Amino acid sequence: MMNPRILELRKNVLDRNDQLARDLRTEFQQAGVFVVNLVSSPGTGKTSFLEFTLRSLKERGYRVAALVGDLQTDNDAQRLMRSGALVRQISTGGNCHLEADMVERHLDQWKLETLDFLFIENVGNLVCTAGYDLGEQMRVVMLATTEGEDKPSKYPPLFSSGDAFVITKIDLAEAAEFDREAAYRSLREIRADVPIFETSAKKNLGMDAWLDFLVEKSAKTPCPA
Amino acid sequence: MMNPRILELRKNVLDRNDQLARDLRTEFQQAGVFVVNLVSSPGTGKTSFLEFTLRSLKERGYRVAALVGDLQTDNDAQRLMRSGALVRQISTGGNCHLEADMVERHLDQWKLETLDFLFIENVGNLVCTAGYDLGEQMRVVMLATTEGEDKPSKYPPLFSSGDAFVITKIDLAEAAEFDREAAYRSLREIRADVPIFETSAKKNLGMDAWLDFLVEKSAKTPCPA
Repeated sequence: MMNPRILELRKNVLDRNDQLARDLRTEFQQAGVFVVNLVSSPGTGKTSFLEFTLRSLKERGYRVAALVGDLQTDNDAQRLMRSGALVRQISTGGNCHLEADMVERHLDQWKLETLDFLFIENVGNLVCTAGYDLGEQMRVVMLATTEGEDKPSKYPPLFSSGDAFVITKIDLAEAAEFDREAAYRSLREIRADVPIFETSAKKNLGMDAWLDFLVEKSAKTPCPA
Repeated sequence: MMNPRILELRKNVLDRNDQLARDLRTEFQQAGVFVVNLVSSPGTGKTSFLEFTLRSLKERGYRVAALVGDLQTDNDAQRLMRSGALVRQISTGGNCHLEADMVERHLDQWKLETLDFLFIENVGNLVCTAGYDLGEQMRVVMLATTEGEDKPSKYPPLFSSGDAFVITKIDLAEAAEFDREAAYRSLREIRADVPIFETSAKKNLGMDAWLDFLVEKSAKTPCPA
């Protein structure tokens, strides 16, 4: 199916990526910044969800930043900057996922020790993103109510790599005839133990539970006002 | 960014794919079967749209078949079989797109000259699918009202390769606050001349216009009843 020489080269690329990701994770932990990698299909609503998350964490007194992977445009970075957070765009030049070295190169003027949270919005893709560790402490795999409930069983490598599942566009669940039970069944078959959040960033539904979870997992405390 | 040896090998793979795709297209044309490649993000609704299309063409007296690319499951193939059409599953084994040789290998027991239409439902992906010609006569690029209107400008290689654009889930346009003007602007910036269809397979909206267009383009006439 796949050319064996491409497979071998890809394995080498993945091995190097994993090594670099481990180094990055150590660096992040030493600096005390909690790093979250957001992955989903294109159109699931990563950017709206992240914009809300950045804004809310800032309001709670946390210092936040985001790296945004995009093939071509800077639409998402522009949207995220409205939150007032530090935002930097990573243009992948057609590549369908971020890699650890792209993350590393875009960090070089940021003082990591002055940040509480760093979010990485990956390229919208349910396949290519799965194999690339970016050094994150938490990987969040997202699924919209408008997308079809069987995505987890159709894309097991990505979903099984998640530390949290976020269901987006819950405000559209009824209109889209979202089958909640089928979605949970599909997610639970892949990972029985991972927390699931039902959210709508647009209508501010379920976002507090997500933010509380994030803060608890990070064990970060806000700066004094 | 991308490993240069991988890039070179990928170029060779693409060149071989293009050659095979050209041969397939000749074979399809000689057999008189009109071949359509459907591409979109995961969750745009390719399978529902295709199931409706297969069923309707059969009702109009056409002989139809479908090949369905899927990474892992045969969920989509099972759904399409309900239409009564010939359906064959192509398991890509983790690959994020179909290639011409996968199509060729799955055709070997079908008599192409007994078919009017052959649909190929590609893997749900806005990146990997763009570069792989499958020998189709028409490539249909699809976008759901629930996905975000800027997908065409974010994924220009795929959208610019389309011969028709289909907007799906038009029944959810209002609930999703779909910005029709922004979507058209984004599509028109990529391709000014390509027809756009607004559809909902679930609610049977806009499907007749799509089917009429397809029949007209194919120049096929139905079998006598």
